[in-house]
Amino acid sequence: MLRVEERDGRVTSDPVRPTAMRSEGDAHDATSWQVRYEAVRAETLARAAPLSAEDQCIQSMPDASPTKWHLAHTTWFFETLLLRPHAAGYRTFDPQFHFLFNSYYEALGPRHPRPQRGMLTRPSLDTIHAYRRHVDQAVDALLRSTDSSTLDAIVPILELGLHHEQQHQELLITDILHALSCNPLLPAYLPAPTTLAPTGATTTGWFVHAGGIAEVGHEGSAFAFDNERPRHAVLLQPFAIADRPVTCGEFAAFIADGGYRRPELWLSDGWAAVQAGSWQHPAYWLAADDPRLAAHDRSTDPWHVFGLHGVQPMAPDAPVSQLSLYEAAAFAEWAGARLPTEFEWEAAAASASMRQMSGHVWQWTRSSYDPYPGFRPLSGAAAEYNGKFMVGQLVLRGGSVATPTGHVRTSYRNFFPPAARWQFSGLRLAKDL
Amino acid sequence: MLRVEERDGRVTSDPVRPTAMRSEGDAHDATSWQVRYEAVRAETLARAAPLSAEDQCIQSMPDASPTKWHLAHTTWFFETLLLRPHAAGYRTFDPQFHFLFNSYYEALGPRHPRPQRGMLTRPSLDTIHAYRRHVDQAVDALLRSTDSSTLDAIVPILELGLHHEQQHQELLITDILHALSCNPLLPAYLPAPTTLAPTGATTTGWFVHAGGIAEVGHEGSAFAFDNERPRHAVLLQPFAIADRPVTCGEFAAFIADGGYRRPELWLSDGWAAVQAGSWQHPAYWLAADDPRLAAHDRSTDPWHVFGLHGVQPMAPDAPVSQLSLYEAAAFAEWAGARLPTEFEWEAAAASASMRQMSGHVWQWTRSSYDPYPGFRPLSGAAAEYNGKFMVGQLVLRGGSVATPTGHVRTSYRNFFPPAARWQFSGLRLAKDL
Amino acid sequence: MLRVEERDGRVTSDPVRPTAMRSEGDAHDATSWQVRYEAVRAETLARAAPLSAEDQCIQSMPDASPTKWHLAHTTWFFETLLLRPHAAGYRTFDPQFHFLFNSYYEALGPRHPRPQRGMLTRPSLDTIHAYRRHVDQAVDALLRSTDSSTLDAIVPILELGLHHEQQHQELLITDILHALSCNPLLPAYLPAPTTLAPTGATTTGWFVHAGGIAEVGHEGSAFAFDNERPRHAVLLQPFAIADRPVTCGEFAAFIADGGYRRPELWLSDGWAAVQAGSWQHPAYWLAADDPRLAAHDRSTDPWHVFGLHGVQPMAPDAPVSQLSLYEAAAFAEWAGARLPTEFEWEAAAASASMRQMSGHVWQWTRSSYDPYPGFRPLSGAAAEYNGKFMVGQLVLRGGSVATPTGHVRTSYRNFFPPAARWQFSGLRLAKDL
Amino acid sequence: MLRVEERDGRVTSDPVRPTAMRSEGDAHDATSWQVRYEAVRAETLARAAPLSAEDQCIQSMPDASPTKWHLAHTTWFFETLLLRPHAAGYRTFDPQFHFLFNSYYEALGPRHPRPQRGMLTRPSLDTIHAYRRHVDQAVDALLRSTDSSTLDAIVPILELGLHHEQQHQELLITDILHALSCNPLLPAYLPAPTTLAPTGATTTGWFVHAGGIAEVGHEGSAFAFDNERPRHAVLLQPFAIADRPVTCGEFAAFIADGGYRRPELWLSDGWAAVQAGSWQHPAYWLAADDPRLAAHDRSTDPWHVFGLHGVQPMAPDAPVSQLSLYEAAAFAEWAGARLPTEFEWEAAAASASMRQMSGHVWQWTRSSYDPYPGFRPLSGAAAEYNGKFMVGQLVLRGGSVATPTGHVRTSYRNFFPPAARWQFSGLRLAKDL
Repeated sequence: MLRVEERDGRVTSDPVRPTAMRSEGDAHDATSWQVRYEAVRAETLARAAPLSAEDQCIQSMPDASPTKWHLAHTTWFFETLLLRPHAAGYRTFDPQFHFLFNSYYEALGPRHPRPQRGMLTRPSLDTIHAYRRHVDQAVDALLRSTDSSTLDAIVPILELGLHHEQQHQELLITDILHALSCNPLLPAYLPAPTTLAPTGATTTGWFVHAGGIAEVGHEGSAFAFDNERPRHAVLLQPFAIADRPVTCGEFAAFIADGGYRRPELWLSDGWAAVQAGSWQHPAYWLAADDPRLAAHDRSTDPWHVFGLHGVQPMAPDAPVSQLSLYEAAAFAEWAGARLPTEFEWEAAAASASMRQMSGHVWQWTRSSYDPYPGFRPLSGAAAEYNGKFMVGQLVLRGGSVATPTGHVRTSYRNFFPPAARWQFSGLRLAKDL
Repeated sequence: MLRVEERDGRVTSDPVRPTAMRSEGDAHDATSWQVRYEAVRAETLARAAPLSAEDQCIQSMPDASPTKWHLAHTTWFFETLLLRPHAAGYRTFDPQFHFLFNSYYEALGPRHPRPQRGMLTRPSLDTIHAYRRHVDQAVDALLRSTDSSTLDAIVPILELGLHHEQQHQELLITDILHALSCNPLLPAYLPAPTTLAPTGATTTGWFVHAGGIAEVGHEGSAFAFDNERPRHAVLLQPFAIADRPVTCGEFAAFIADGGYRRPELWLSDGWAAVQAGSWQHPAYWLAADDPRLAAHDRSTDPWHVFGLHGVQPMAPDAPVSQLSLYEAAAFAEWAGARLPTEFEWEAAAASASMRQMSGHVWQWTRSSYDPYPGFRPLSGAAAEYNGKFMVGQLVLRGGSVATPTGHVRTSYRNFFPPAARWQFSGLRLAKDL
Repeated sequence: MLRVEERDGRVTSDPVRPTAMRSEGDAHDATSWQVRYEAVRAETLARAAPLSAEDQCIQSMPDASPTKWHLAHTTWFFETLLLRPHAAGYRTFDPQFHFLFNSYYEALGPRHPRPQRGMLTRPSLDTIHAYRRHVDQAVDALLRSTDSSTLDAIVPILELGLHHEQQHQELLITDILHALSCNPLLPAYLPAPTTLAPTGATTTGWFVHAGGIAEVGHEGSAFAFDNERPRHAVLLQPFAIADRPVTCGEFAAFIADGGYRRPELWLSDGWAAVQAGSWQHPAYWLAADDPRLAAHDRSTDPWHVFGLHGVQPMAPDAPVSQLSLYEAAAFAEWAGARLPTEFEWEAAAASASMRQMSGHVWQWTRSSYDPYPGFRPLSGAAAEYNGKFMVGQLVLRGGSVATPTGHVRTSYRNFFPPAARWQFSGLRLAKDL
Repeated sequence: MLRVEERDGRVTSDPVRPTAMRSEGDAHDATSWQVRYEAVRAETLARAAPLSAEDQCIQSMPDASPTKWHLAHTTWFFETLLLRPHAAGYRTFDPQFHFLFNSYYEALGPRHPRPQRGMLTRPSLDTIHAYRRHVDQAVDALLRSTDSSTLDAIVPILELGLHHEQQHQELLITDILHALSCNPLLPAYLPAPTTLAPTGATTTGWFVHAGGIAEVGHEGSAFAFDNERPRHAVLLQPFAIADRPVTCGEFAAFIADGGYRRPELWLSDGWAAVQAGSWQHPAYWLAADDPRLAAHDRSTDPWHVFGLHGVQPMAPDAPVSQLSLYEAAAFAEWAGARLPTEFEWEAAAASASMRQMSGHVWQWTRSSYDPYPGFRPLSGAAAEYNGKFMVGQLVLRGGSVATPTGHVRTSYRNFFPPAARWQFSGLRLAKDL
């Protein structure tokens, strides 16, 4: 089994082989699909490997899912959308799994309630591993036996399934991190690194965009989600955008300046969240007097941060993370700046050489997650993949330390409700000119 | 006192004199401001006049406010932002009112909790009327005594206060209507009309817009809210937009076709709301077997609708109202269309002769309530007027039967959370071309 | 109309005539019933008289009801249980009132939801007054026309209705007091008295009971509720009971000694309530730094108390009131004593000359509200009067400043959930010997 | 390790050796205490043995605890109250466990929140097993090294710890059964028995008690909880009590007669629970159309019941179980009977040869859980063991299939809130004479 570790600040499982999701040229070569399928599936297991069966079973809030559920649901996706319609003679592993591991597809019938996913001690983790092997063998057999015209028919759903599984690879990490954060022992997902990754930039540069008509959205025939399409022109005003995300050190200055006590900096819903939740700092930060620190580092650092390696002293130059949109927007207001729109972000990314666009934190934008003009959802059950969530959420751009290699694009639209605080979500500042 | 009634389907108080809010030419003539001030203030009282002291006191949900509170809060706005800073020697009516009738201005200190507004049986309605007279006299004296340079200084806040009061005139109507809808007797706000207003169009025309660059947002120096500014260019795709809102008859067909039972038509949050709230029809509709109908019309109409005149048979040609964004979007999906964006709506309104753009129902758009590029909030306490609400809400355009004459503009942006069901909110269909 | 005032510390409406509920000898004399009926009905109106229509309409929590609702519900009781079955030709005032003003009688059909009673601005207060007159005239006519055998048949329900109305007279006071306590102005129900009532005892005597078999429960044929029957023998251990209730001054000492911060004094549910509600003192006490004091007495008293006369300095010798059972039990624990059982209280009351048994505060006992051995509920709809509430509540004995004259007996069992804090509820200490 | 199974309808781990908790004669013999300690500790592990590490980690509701938590908390009890004060040189296993595994002892400091017990995937189950061995070895060493005077000092807390652990043995079973009931697969705790236990009586006999003075409460010096003391006399009315609990077959007749749809049978809080929870049958019953039955027995039985062996056809002669007090009281009302008081139950148990008093189901009584006259809690931290829970709960008597052998006594008082539906709780009828 691949061993997951953090290298250069990223969760990854394989020092040699990139996950190969980027190669698109050989999309109709069954062998290359086999390789890609195996790589993606192995990465999921590698991410679960540091966790005990107990760890993999629990659910810490309705928004988060157990690791084991992610292992099973991604498998269910291939079984339901690929094997059952396309693999003649495929034997369903267990008919009850259709009820247990459907996430939100209304068209596919009733399902186990989301807040109850942590109750599934049975099927056991061993059984879920067997389920994965069963489906993997069937996919392998399907790809071995398929002719090129059949391959053409199944590649779209196969490819969607792989990107779908990569999305769950990220959620697997953020969800277990939330679960571990609910344990007063604050256990680590990974052992602490022997040397800290260089955390990068201390000075901020500003990239200036002259505005005007810009093309946004996914171009070409390579894979992209339906919500990235169609590519279309938008009209931008001149703006400047920071060449790196906001750092923990900068955010500590915001806190020290009373950031969490000054309503004028906050959106109204954000201020209500600050008061209702007694927010005083980012969700995974620990103040120096936090009793949970007693069993960890006893240094006198003013802040510690809980993360993949457990509790560590706050690294001033690292991008600040696990922010809600509310906190990101309040920081920007305090800094005399604003959040970029998703189109400003995309236009800048397309034309400039900015740092840390991806691989560190997702970056909240000031754009609500609305459909693009001419948006058409995928057909069949996959129609529910993106479109039905286009209300009440905001777009994040970039990609994080937990995002699988090769998964994201410049046009990629991540989205979460504005109060979400358990993702690797930070911000990049922008300004009017 | 002016008598409020419905004429041509609109709530209004004066058969002769328009509310005069449209005239902008004489903005620096104190006398004309006196006239405008008196007209707006009288309209508020006229809208409250059909209600007893008991009616004016209650609060039916945290989102809605008592009539009496609207009477007092709009007065507090003038007292706090106009008289106290600008009227030398002004005597505050009651220092406690500053706590009681501040709505949401953090900069102005703590305030009575919103969900507790219905507890204010004291001060009595008579006292609130005296408060209004006290402030009105002080404003009158201020305008009489002011020279033109002082007038220049106070006009912006005076004008804002008048538009603010007009907004509360609409809320006064929608809030009391919600309160009355919670009474199983379903009492009427106004007596039933002797003749029904002609409800208009049965055929739909489609206005076609060729797309391209369009200017949106408020232009010129006349009054507009900060959220309508700055005027800026946007790029539109070609689209068609219906020349009238969706009617009750059309919505009844959606219901009859299982609209409230088909998840594929709904946004995910919308479907959750349907299930959690057991929605089967618009909020103020009554099915034929509703026990509350027993004391009303016993006709065999399949639907009745509760409105300003109490319970009436559903009028098939009238615009459907009191819809949430979720219901509006599900209807559009069912109709093979979509909601327009706010910019499509505005561009169409600017160039075409469509029917019922305003004066019937606000029209949900598919645009989240985001800031315009270059948005700058007002200064001082008024900075909290609009900007801090720009998350989690969607834009409605148009204007309703409850909107005061002269209050709205083509660039006007109303906004509510997507689940709101107590406004005069309907929809107008749009299509890609 | 009678004028309600406080005399000798009690709410009452008539300086001359006792409410006459005590006379039982002439139970079969229709004229004497007319007198009693009129007196009780007048007392209810007298208690509502200091309140505006606005005051009488609101509901401050689901447990409390609007004054107007009390006026109507007590009337509905006579209409439904007395007039409709027994008054030939009685014309129902309004058929919809049966739905609106049924409190909790499942056998009498569906009813308006309890938490929505504050929504009933219609029927207006004037209409409810007309309803009362309509029913009063019909009862009067019934009593005038009845012969003695019919009188025998209706007296039980007539008498129950009068005692029922007296119970609502007390709730009318405690419910409006709660509503007024939710108003930051803390308005007074009655004007402040010119002279304070003497508040009594500062020294505590202990009455010693030798234990043994005691008879408890109601004896004889005079009116009593079903929950006071049957009279039966219980076996008591020797005990001592205080000859007066605990005073405000004593309770202030408990607070000063950290009473609200010491979990060892509290029942587990009580300690949870302290923490969830941030309790630091009795519900209607105001600490010296309470911002609501600014508009009232600016004396430097450490405590003020909100009551019938609004905000007054805490009277050290007055019985402490508006306590939950949790607070009463914690105080007793702190004082090295305990609460009496309801049978200890009753046995002591039957044999000793203690002070302030009734007329000041209800006294929490350490007895859960369980049925007596051989308990039989009333027949018909009245079966739901008491028995179905016999779980989750504790018994209070005595009677309060708000209890109508003549309403209570030594065997009387009042009951509330342990967290209730809006009644005139205090405690009397007891000890083992 | 002992193997747990069901024999004669009881959960037990050892076909040969009774748990030896009954022998009291040799209470001061250290060796006999070693034997008893080992037996009780082994039984706990035997009950956990059929469960995977995943099963042992989850928490299905705040009222229930994970198996692993029970294993740790019972160990913490010995460590905290026995070893740390009494075993010189004892090395605490892990100082953090004091925070993690304190249940509700305020005197022992802050603790992990009860609703978050399911988040403790770490410490792992293996670590908890090591914790148990560490403490067991220390207790063994303490008992080996102790002289008789020291033994006298530690026996009370040692014995309390063993009875405490036995209480958790029962909760371990009922809590995991609740967790498994939340899994739509309804997995079994134990394999289905090859032969069904004879479920006993179909005819009911009635034991008649003449009433009069009866002694209740624990007598003598053998172990009993503080809430069973002091023994005292009570006065009983004549009554009859059924010689066996109500059966499933009888309860099915109640359901068939509309028992869950007739408010007149229910306590008011009970009827509210029926409506709020849509109760139609006992919590662990499955109607014939329950979709979860598809994967189980497909027989046409009208009812199935989920229990220790998973889903089984309802056994008409078995005692009905997992009832709330509300359901028990409604059944009794329907049957023309009532629940016994706890003293009637105890007096009958002391004098009659009734069937199934213990070992099948706990039997709800109509007695609230109030303190006995002269009640004195244990001293030290153990003072919180029972007394602080004496409000809002009702007494159950008897003992269930899950109660460890030798744990209960005639005077034993179990207690739960009236809405609790996850215990082996049924009822025995009583009647007035």
